[in-house]
Amino acid sequence: MSGARVHFETWLDAQRRAVDEALEAVVPAHREPAFVWEAMRYSLFAGGKRLRPLLALAAAEAVAERRGGAAAQAHALAMPCACALELIHTYSLVHDDLPAMDNDVLRRGRPTAHVVYGEGLAILVGDALLTEAFAHLAAEPRTVDGVDDAELARRRIAAIRLIADAAGPSGMVGGQAIDLRAAGGNAAPLNADGLRDMHARKTGALIRAAALSGASMAGADGALGSAIDEYAFHVGLAFQIVDDILDVEGASADLGKTAGKDVAAGKPTYPALYGLDASRRLAAECIDRSLAALEGAGLAGHLPALAGWVVGRHS
Amino acid sequence: MSGARVHFETWLDAQRRAVDEALEAVVPAHREPAFVWEAMRYSLFAGGKRLRPLLALAAAEAVAERRGGAAAQAHALAMPCACALELIHTYSLVHDDLPAMDNDVLRRGRPTAHVVYGEGLAILVGDALLTEAFAHLAAEPRTVDGVDDAELARRRIAAIRLIADAAGPSGMVGGQAIDLRAAGGNAAPLNADGLRDMHARKTGALIRAAALSGASMAGADGALGSAIDEYAFHVGLAFQIVDDILDVEGASADLGKTAGKDVAAGKPTYPALYGLDASRRLAAECIDRSLAALEGAGLAGHLPALAGWVVGRHS
Repeated sequence: MSGARVHFETWLDAQRRAVDEALEAVVPAHREPAFVWEAMRYSLFAGGKRLRPLLALAAAEAVAERRGGAAAQAHALAMPCACALELIHTYSLVHDDLPAMDNDVLRRGRPTAHVVYGEGLAILVGDALLTEAFAHLAAEPRTVDGVDDAELARRRIAAIRLIADAAGPSGMVGGQAIDLRAAGGNAAPLNADGLRDMHARKTGALIRAAALSGASMAGADGALGSAIDEYAFHVGLAFQIVDDILDVEGASADLGKTAGKDVAAGKPTYPALYGLDASRRLAAECIDRSLAALEGAGLAGHLPALAGWVVGRHS
Repeated sequence: MSGARVHFETWLDAQRRAVDEALEAVVPAHREPAFVWEAMRYSLFAGGKRLRPLLALAAAEAVAERRGGAAAQAHALAMPCACALELIHTYSLVHDDLPAMDNDVLRRGRPTAHVVYGEGLAILVGDALLTEAFAHLAAEPRTVDGVDDAELARRRIAAIRLIADAAGPSGMVGGQAIDLRAAGGNAAPLNADGLRDMHARKTGALIRAAALSGASMAGADGALGSAIDEYAFHVGLAFQIVDDILDVEGASADLGKTAGKDVAAGKPTYPALYGLDASRRLAAECIDRSLAALEGAGLAGHLPALAGWVVGRHS
């Protein structure tokens, strides 16, 4: 491995550990009612790659670096968003896996929440993770050295709004609803534009909110925010294309979830629309564009390597 | 009717109209994807009594009156909380009615969301209403005449935290999980303490958060906040006891939902534990205590009449 690659992998491991430690404190084992918090922990600590938290932290770091700020301060500012984003991502998986939705029994190599706890509690676990995300954003960070309290409050409210808008009915939930309706045959099959719109909402919106909330917490102005948003838009699209490719190619064991489900369910995918080779080229183009957006704004840090990591490894 | 009663009914009608108008703007018909927003509106505009919004507005008014502030300013401050609370309450009804939970087909006299839209979309509608509640709290109120921007931001973050904590795993969601587990026979039947704890979480927490968030937005200090919290605690308990009584006594047509469900499902209720007469006395005692809490802090406004309304009319 090259030095740069080793450096990125070291950063990745350290950040993942930091995120998991922070999540341990946000969803601890000792709160009441214990069986609810334990069920939340089952899905939250199932070995996810923490892509959204990593995007939030890397974006905050890159903005801090660009503005002459410290990485440690950027982390303190962005970590609550990182945790909230992972709680929201996990809730969306728990609900998407339900029998009334994708009816998946395997996720990250383990039985899904409703298989373990029953449908009713799985629905509530999702609700709990989503609500706790906002409780955490409203609780942290209380103070950060070097940032005025009023300015911190302003940034925090902006981050809550970014994340809630991305997760809500016109974002992630809306995308899942469009997907559900298309798969159920209650609407016309999605064409290329429809597929793009569905994914932009279902996975793209939260990925953009991850990078953008991290950047905003670190004090990104309009121009830096736009560049981060463009970067994340293309990373999110690449992520979805790769996810579709893996669904076609992957075996259950490698993927940690049931493979071939999308095709079996008659869901529209990039490979189905464009073929495998063109889908791979499309993903590579998206990464190129994400890098161009960073360069144009003088942003770097771990964001370029993270973009490459997204298409190289499934999260 | 007495003059005071007429005055209260006039206030009640005006506030309900104001809340419904505000909710129209929060969940409008014209946003995309349209079928998701329409399904959210189906449950939101189903004729609810708006108890939680009314508590938030009345608490804000009472605090303003006590501190020499204007009712109009109190309204502007508390209305976003009022709307968010109703979105959260509605989401909880949509999810509680699901086949995997209470399996209710009738709510407020109309078919429940999953009957109309299917289980999958009903789950997503609940998710959407919950998320939009926090998006709204993060968006409004932007500015309020006479309140410093930094102070407003501080109050808003505190209100988001109050509401999220009350709705989350140790509050409303936790209470529903305890109820679900007890009804499913997967745990020992609830005794009197267990019943109280379950209701304190399932309905009590959000009712307290309603009054307390409204009071906080209006600038209540520690002592006024404590009095409002004690008032709301007793109102919430009375509300639940009356709800249990109505479930035993009521006919489906009057109640607008399937009556006798709790007893049929083997759920613990106040009448089952204490009998009907003792349950009625208990509800009356709760109201007395709620009024005493107000008097002790010199608070009044429409809060005393609202407490009486809770036990007199089902919401």
